[in-house]
Amino acid sequence: MTEAAVPPLRWYGWGDRAVTPPAGLLRLLHEELGASAGVVSPPVARDQVVLPPSGLSDRLRRRLVAALGSAHVRRGDDERLRHAAGRSYLDLLMLRAGQLTEAPDAVLHPGTPEEVLRVLRVCSDDGCAVVPFGGGTSVVGGVAPLHGGRHALVTLALDRCAGNAGVDAVSQMATLTAGTSGPAAESMLWPLGFTLGHWPQSFEYATVGGFAATRSAGQASSGYGRFDDVVRGARLVAPAGELALRAAPPDATGPGLLQMVLGSEGTLGVITEVTVRVRKRPRTRHYAGWSFAGLEAGAAALRELAQHAALPDVTRLSDAEETRVSFAMAGEGTATRAAHAYLRARGQSAPCLGILGWEGSGADIGRRMREVAPLLRRHGAIALGGAPGRAWLRSRFEGPYLRDALLDRGLLVETLETAATWTELLTVREAVNAALRASLGARGTAPLIGCHVSHVYPEGASLYFTVLARRDSADPAGQWLDAKRAATDALLAAGGALSHHHGVGRDHAPWLGRFAGDLGVTALHGLRASLDPAGIMNPGKLTARH
Amino acid sequence: MTEAAVPPLRWYGWGDRAVTPPAGLLRLLHEELGASAGVVSPPVARDQVVLPPSGLSDRLRRRLVAALGSAHVRRGDDERLRHAAGRSYLDLLMLRAGQLTEAPDAVLHPGTPEEVLRVLRVCSDDGCAVVPFGGGTSVVGGVAPLHGGRHALVTLALDRCAGNAGVDAVSQMATLTAGTSGPAAESMLWPLGFTLGHWPQSFEYATVGGFAATRSAGQASSGYGRFDDVVRGARLVAPAGELALRAAPPDATGPGLLQMVLGSEGTLGVITEVTVRVRKRPRTRHYAGWSFAGLEAGAAALRELAQHAALPDVTRLSDAEETRVSFAMAGEGTATRAAHAYLRARGQSAPCLGILGWEGSGADIGRRMREVAPLLRRHGAIALGGAPGRAWLRSRFEGPYLRDALLDRGLLVETLETAATWTELLTVREAVNAALRASLGARGTAPLIGCHVSHVYPEGASLYFTVLARRDSADPAGQWLDAKRAATDALLAAGGALSHHHGVGRDHAPWLGRFAGDLGVTALHGLRASLDPAGIMNPGKLTARH
Repeated sequence: MTEAAVPPLRWYGWGDRAVTPPAGLLRLLHEELGASAGVVSPPVARDQVVLPPSGLSDRLRRRLVAALGSAHVRRGDDERLRHAAGRSYLDLLMLRAGQLTEAPDAVLHPGTPEEVLRVLRVCSDDGCAVVPFGGGTSVVGGVAPLHGGRHALVTLALDRCAGNAGVDAVSQMATLTAGTSGPAAESMLWPLGFTLGHWPQSFEYATVGGFAATRSAGQASSGYGRFDDVVRGARLVAPAGELALRAAPPDATGPGLLQMVLGSEGTLGVITEVTVRVRKRPRTRHYAGWSFAGLEAGAAALRELAQHAALPDVTRLSDAEETRVSFAMAGEGTATRAAHAYLRARGQSAPCLGILGWEGSGADIGRRMREVAPLLRRHGAIALGGAPGRAWLRSRFEGPYLRDALLDRGLLVETLETAATWTELLTVREAVNAALRASLGARGTAPLIGCHVSHVYPEGASLYFTVLARRDSADPAGQWLDAKRAATDALLAAGGALSHHHGVGRDHAPWLGRFAGDLGVTALHGLRASLDPAGIMNPGKLTARH
Repeated sequence: MTEAAVPPLRWYGWGDRAVTPPAGLLRLLHEELGASAGVVSPPVARDQVVLPPSGLSDRLRRRLVAALGSAHVRRGDDERLRHAAGRSYLDLLMLRAGQLTEAPDAVLHPGTPEEVLRVLRVCSDDGCAVVPFGGGTSVVGGVAPLHGGRHALVTLALDRCAGNAGVDAVSQMATLTAGTSGPAAESMLWPLGFTLGHWPQSFEYATVGGFAATRSAGQASSGYGRFDDVVRGARLVAPAGELALRAAPPDATGPGLLQMVLGSEGTLGVITEVTVRVRKRPRTRHYAGWSFAGLEAGAAALRELAQHAALPDVTRLSDAEETRVSFAMAGEGTATRAAHAYLRARGQSAPCLGILGWEGSGADIGRRMREVAPLLRRHGAIALGGAPGRAWLRSRFEGPYLRDALLDRGLLVETLETAATWTELLTVREAVNAALRASLGARGTAPLIGCHVSHVYPEGASLYFTVLARRDSADPAGQWLDAKRAATDALLAAGGALSHHHGVGRDHAPWLGRFAGDLGVTALHGLRASLDPAGIMNPGKLTARH
């Protein structure tokens, strides 16, 4: 694991790496959704993009330059465009169409917590909104430059606040500055013998500060923990001052201040640094495929693993639809046909693919695998060996690249996620599926919906949905907004969480009161008011009104 | 595990069970501290106790009776005395002397969350302070009836809010009402095949609501988790309304509202119900003693266990002084002498006793024990077999009973605790020891200080100190206040936490700003103001000013 030179995000999408959709996938999408095999809907040319003019007053600009130096107060269109949106489907539609209704008036690049504080004081004084910006990969509008009536808005990019502030090898904790990306963090820790073990799909671009601000969960959460599990200390620079929470074991000193900073999504201040538990880097790893006859059997097996503290480090289980798409992507080669025939012969006509991954020493992995195999077999699972595991591992960060290619082909492509107790998990999945089918079907664009269970806990698990449909070119945003609204209403009614790891941002804010209760929102407002009296931090996010 | 009929707390101390200090202990305390073998300092007779008069206005009393019924608004002296103090050393000194400067003006016994809300509305309107009261076992002044200038104060006892509100066996969660005691919770769960596994020393009297409000940690925290780890949902009734946080897996929906409720110590409202992860009740258990040549070697072993996810369910390690006292309590029988000789022969002249406990199935326990034995031996540990483990298990709740007996004998007896990273753990211990020795030594009452490491995490552990000294009869409270102040200053300066599991309450509140920062206290005030606008909840606790 070294810091690969990851090229920056494209202005209209994900990274600058050509990912061609597998022929088997294109065939399936053509047959079932009527998608084109070729590019029919490319983004506009960069020079066609229209941005609103920068509304920064001279007075404010001078004060910001005095605080940071002119090199770090940037108003060029490329800078403003690169910080004008996250990476949700709706963000991508807007960027690709080249018509931006909102953009930051300036992009600031502070280099230290002291500079962040200086900027927040200037902006508080001026009434200028501030949007903290890490990797810019939010899929819930978390970095949207919503002026919301304020005369100006600056985006505060944390790319200069990047680096390792120290490792305590004895206590196994590392202090990382907020702008450190996933690959940068691992490339600092790996040579010291450690890993953070945090691998969300956005790993290549997302930052440590963003992981903390949004309560991120990586693909190996069942082994390494959610990000909010591993954070042991943090620094938050708020308009009202600095909150420095020293790295320490759990304690009993009142309500959890650290847990108030985590998930604050830029609404309380700027997380400038986090201290995290790190782990000895694994010597080796083994990822294996196991096939279940149905989602119910697979979920029951995962539940038993979680409740017996026998979880692999990566634990995920696709439903039959997602499994079918995976097989289509693998292509109709001899191996795939043989696997299908084998599973059918064993009574699995619509198999559900589980990927279980173990990391550590060889002996330890062997012991842990042997321990769970009988349990899996008891739930009817069939071992598929290492090939599906290796295939998943190779493509684990490819989803967003592939999405750009499918957008080129005129499709709607979006994901959404939730979490629920084991008791309610499958009901929630059915409710979401039904809502999406009804909403998209009513427009004549019946969807293909894959779902997987991952991020497994003793009391429940998350559900992650991928939705594919023919895009309604007359009203593409409305098509998805309706479907998303229907899905969110349905999952809340069935007992699901508003979000398991994407966060609240702008897009989920209207539902927060329904999920957390009016008094929950009141408490968050109390917190915001105490740390950000002028109400400048990331307006329109999390609690919507501020 | 059935609900033993635990007699209520004595008005001046712990439970009504005669615990005679072992002869070996009395001999040691006589030789080293000059303690008497017999009772020289009994509590005053009950009829000598002086309480301040109840200052409840007729108007407020009528409104409270209208809200709850007259049977549940109690003003008798026995009721007021039983709710006038927690169970710290200073509380016990005050109770035993029979001179109370503060007491609740009335004790209310609501039976439902709706009744709690009704009372809080009446009290908000009236400006009457409210102290929530679970088991009354706080050792940091958490239930002290501090009027703080308010014309009246009522204590809200939760004994009628006790019972099981439901078990979800599939998702392995139980909903328990706040007033449910430790034994009552286990006696509900055990027949259903589950356990909460939460065994603090106060287990017999403390309540589920108190565990949540104070972030309690049980003796088996390394196996079953801290209480704030296992809580998955809660209901908080605040003056501003009700916050109902539905039981669910972890999510990403903003700052952790549940973690704001946990540790709130009655300052935000009344926790009326919690939903907790439960575990399959263990089929058997094995607790073993291991002896280390020193605290450093023992701590290194515990650190390695924690960092390799190989912790037993109970993990504790006494320093040489605490081990010496344990041996004295076991008496100078043949077995003890033989053990001493054996350890000395193996190079352990001042041994440190570790108690490691495993719970589960026999096969599982065997496997886990075999896994860690080589690691322990690598750190020089000598196996002492099951006898020390059984002895510890028998006496695990006896400390507070024994304390009453030692108070009778004219001693100062108190405990304090903290937590620190592994890097700083032993420095913190030395700093606390030195501060206590200096402060108590300056009065001519040199202490005997035992310490153990417990509640072990990958990044650090807690330290728990027991202090014994001859009481300064001229100024017993001042003697301890000075020592406690010195110890707290010292542990904070050395990097320790203000509290690992006792909480903040009244006694630690003056230090909270130094530990959590001014902005941390500001955030807590923001939270308090939003949920309790009239500022009636548990004044003088947690953040001191309100």
